[in-house]
Amino acid sequence: MAAQLESTMKNELPELIVLGPPAVFSVYGGKLAEKFRILKPWESSLPLEEFLSDNAKSVEALLCSTTKPVSASVLNRLPRLRLVVTTSAGLDHIDLQECRRLGIAVANAPAIFSIDVADLAVGLLIDVLRRISACNRYVKSGSWLIKGNYPLASKLGGKRVGIVGLGSIGQQVAKRLEAFGCIISYHSRETKKHLLPSYTFYDDVLQLARATDVLIICCALTDQTHHLIDRDVLLALGKHGVIVNIARGAIVHEKELVQCLLEGEIAGAGLDVFEGEPHVPAELIGLDNVVLSPHYAAFTHESFAQSYDLIVGNLEAFFYNKPLLSPVLYC
Amino acid sequence: MAAQLESTMKNELPELIVLGPPAVFSVYGGKLAEKFRILKPWESSLPLEEFLSDNAKSVEALLCSTTKPVSASVLNRLPRLRLVVTTSAGLDHIDLQECRRLGIAVANAPAIFSIDVADLAVGLLIDVLRRISACNRYVKSGSWLIKGNYPLASKLGGKRVGIVGLGSIGQQVAKRLEAFGCIISYHSRETKKHLLPSYTFYDDVLQLARATDVLIICCALTDQTHHLIDRDVLLALGKHGVIVNIARGAIVHEKELVQCLLEGEIAGAGLDVFEGEPHVPAELIGLDNVVLSPHYAAFTHESFAQSYDLIVGNLEAFFYNKPLLSPVLYC
Repeated sequence: MAAQLESTMKNELPELIVLGPPAVFSVYGGKLAEKFRILKPWESSLPLEEFLSDNAKSVEALLCSTTKPVSASVLNRLPRLRLVVTTSAGLDHIDLQECRRLGIAVANAPAIFSIDVADLAVGLLIDVLRRISACNRYVKSGSWLIKGNYPLASKLGGKRVGIVGLGSIGQQVAKRLEAFGCIISYHSRETKKHLLPSYTFYDDVLQLARATDVLIICCALTDQTHHLIDRDVLLALGKHGVIVNIARGAIVHEKELVQCLLEGEIAGAGLDVFEGEPHVPAELIGLDNVVLSPHYAAFTHESFAQSYDLIVGNLEAFFYNKPLLSPVLYC
Repeated sequence: MAAQLESTMKNELPELIVLGPPAVFSVYGGKLAEKFRILKPWESSLPLEEFLSDNAKSVEALLCSTTKPVSASVLNRLPRLRLVVTTSAGLDHIDLQECRRLGIAVANAPAIFSIDVADLAVGLLIDVLRRISACNRYVKSGSWLIKGNYPLASKLGGKRVGIVGLGSIGQQVAKRLEAFGCIISYHSRETKKHLLPSYTFYDDVLQLARATDVLIICCALTDQTHHLIDRDVLLALGKHGVIVNIARGAIVHEKELVQCLLEGEIAGAGLDVFEGEPHVPAELIGLDNVVLSPHYAAFTHESFAQSYDLIVGNLEAFFYNKPLLSPVLYC
């Protein structure tokens, strides 16, 4: 009896198809399943598009992240779809034109994660310059006692920092590093002189690299930014230069970066993202001047909770015919 | 002939006695020896005070750091001493009253290292909250590939930060963490309301701990601050609390800190200083939520170079009868 009731209630929950699944789902999947009947294509043996055609004919809402493209082919297999919610700020994985044509609304998660990503960018930079991870190992392995003082590190204050992509993350990084006494320049599609007059704009990333000690990659991955940071840019940054990437692995030509690090053409790197992640170039493992993290710049309890609240808020608004909380495309 | 000339020139160099030796000496000792004939008591088998009485009767200038006290007994064994130069901002290792009585000038290194120490304090805090060192290990050991996502970390933005000691380092830390969106409170001997009205003052460190998520220790070590941060303060900080110490080991009751970390009474710690350094409590070695560094908050190339320039500048000013660059006591 109870089981039957539970099953009836479960069937009455609004349907939600989840692509991916997004990282937030791994933590909040259980809570989400109390509110929605969730379709999980990744648990099916069917190819995604077949799964959609077979099982998701009635689904009206879809949750996704940047890891799975919401292509025209996906959208057209879901004839009753009216809402796409993405856990990201970026939208380049969603065919917005097709959504518009089909009358599908889109909601995103603007700037929830910018703070955390900017914080990690600064943390990685301090770690590389001041060798925090390496020092932690030095102390924990007992070397301090045996070998004495750790070699001198590099100062952060006064460093000339070049930010590639001055969007919401880049601006947060700049704000933080200004407080450390760094001098901020940037490269982006267009100058933000009117908004941020104290930062120097370079329309060429090579010139930015020549003029700075540190490059922090904060731009979106597009055809234009793919392998934007190559050997030429790294050589322009120079032997004392440090690179931090918290954006997307493929913005940096990873093979050329590894080569420059091994040859001492740049001084160090802090990398949260990689071209073939979770695979990481083996050559980087042993380098003390390289700090690696597992694409987790946005992975904090606080931001995941906020992200979950926004996802549920958008979905409930949709199912109760209320205005979406963070719409980017209205249907 | 050349040897004789060299020896004559060497004897003509002004004499400088170095106590300690200071860390900057380990890097710049060679350069300093080109300008001064250096007396090195630590290389002698004699006890310090005997060395002074026997070998330093004619010396007029002394270089020291915080590691060796410049006591009345030291000062009185150097009858011709007219200048003490310390590599530190702090002066508590120098008997200033006796210097004044004997007509000995004192020069220090004000705020050269504050920037670096503040930068490391923020770096350690980000590292503990966001688990950068632990993540670096996770990626480099191959765990990302095998175990998948690293667990969620803790956000920095919005954290309530309590600064113990709002001197030049504490103020630099506050300025940086404000840019991260942290809310700043502090405890110090007296309120700085007139200077820094946006920070909340607590005249009791226990109250500060109750009201904050993070404590950053930036005060001097005195009789009043010895073991100021004890179990009661740590319990008041609470299970989500993090402590960062870049000041002096003995300000924290280390044994009680270790106990609180092992029992989960606080969430983590970033420690650059220890009570019995370079000895570090063995219990801390295996803890992922504890980041340790080898009392190197001031150890950057840039600050050491600046410190060396200031030391030489003060010494040359003294020997050429010009005004000292950074006097704290005139003779």
